[in-house]
Amino acid sequence: MVEEALRSEFQIELLAGTSSFISQNLAQTGSVQELIETDNESLNKASLLQNPQDALALVRQPINSKPEFNLNSELILALDFIQDPGNLGTIIRIADWFGISTIVCSENTVDCFNPKVVQASMGAIFRIKTWYTSLNNFLEENVKNQIPVYGTFLDGRNIYAEVLTCNGVIVMGNEGNGISKEAGQFVSTRLFIPSFSINENKSESLNVAIATAICCSEFRRR
Amino acid sequence: MVEEALRSEFQIELLAGTSSFISQNLAQTGSVQELIETDNESLNKASLLQNPQDALALVRQPINSKPEFNLNSELILALDFIQDPGNLGTIIRIADWFGISTIVCSENTVDCFNPKVVQASMGAIFRIKTWYTSLNNFLEENVKNQIPVYGTFLDGRNIYAEVLTCNGVIVMGNEGNGISKEAGQFVSTRLFIPSFSINENKSESLNVAIATAICCSEFRRR
Repeated sequence: MVEEALRSEFQIELLAGTSSFISQNLAQTGSVQELIETDNESLNKASLLQNPQDALALVRQPINSKPEFNLNSELILALDFIQDPGNLGTIIRIADWFGISTIVCSENTVDCFNPKVVQASMGAIFRIKTWYTSLNNFLEENVKNQIPVYGTFLDGRNIYAEVLTCNGVIVMGNEGNGISKEAGQFVSTRLFIPSFSINENKSESLNVAIATAICCSEFRRR
Repeated sequence: MVEEALRSEFQIELLAGTSSFISQNLAQTGSVQELIETDNESLNKASLLQNPQDALALVRQPINSKPEFNLNSELILALDFIQDPGNLGTIIRIADWFGISTIVCSENTVDCFNPKVVQASMGAIFRIKTWYTSLNNFLEENVKNQIPVYGTFLDGRNIYAEVLTCNGVIVMGNEGNGISKEAGQFVSTRLFIPSFSINENKSESLNVAIATAICCSEFRRR
């Protein structure tokens, strides 16, 4: 994780590492403001993790501002009130895998710099641009600009049979309630991931990170 | 979750619930050995959850035995040393969604009745058959019987372009190390979920539950 931070554009305020870690990553430490060589015992004391590694970094959170993206040519994710930090971290990791470089988050989505989010992202937090803004205003603007806005709903159309574009916004909804009514009115294509269960009492839904992965896979494979 | 248990074939040793819960589920309580009507205060004291619900059940774990399945006509999942209970529970939920009724687990996979697994499965644990056995022996036997055995590897073939059968075994590997060498030798089709990231320092892998979801989606959509 610290290596990912060093290779990113994030500002590293402080890096504490073992001498071997520092020598192995010397080329990347140029922009580090304060560099401390230390031992594993001190790192164990300072770390919040159960199994601390060979380095620890204090990284400045970037200012929340609109990143550059072009919705005429690229896909982005928009999250509507994702509450669970593990889910958000996993979604960031999925976006990284599927080449989606921007995630727009509703203002009530869990903070992407929550330690559990950072951990679950497995370093992808340092590569993906996040922007917290009014989701409804953002979606409304895209609809005005005729950008396709996709979302998953229980009564949507079979994603496997649908025409999906290479650009636009994919909205993923809250863990318990899905996409809000307000955001839902800006979704131009309502999708659904069909269940193949033959069980009467089958599950009603998929976890939101799982649904995000299947959506991204479907958009990208074509 | 308790409602799912009541509708399942699992044996309910004890059910404690509020009077409204019991009256709503009366039709399903016939096989409950001990039924206790109680109030939320007592349930809160007895529950391990932070936000206890209106009922609590003591359910007997089924004996670990080979379930019925026919690999000439159906797909099953086989797990090679899945360690994280959240991942196993999520995989059980995915299997339920995609109509995969059996999961074969290596003996070193985390216990599927671990409370975190049960919780993450969102009730699917009561619908999916699990069987802990020697994974290598199980896979070897299937190879002998010419059953297709699939697995994901970093050097596998693009899953989106591959011919996938409606029957066989899909092996998913350990969180850190993937499929073991021993199990890997019985995999007849080595698959890979390609990354679409253009980032130099992109992620090396997907979370195992995410990879399972994408594999199941690919097998089922065709």
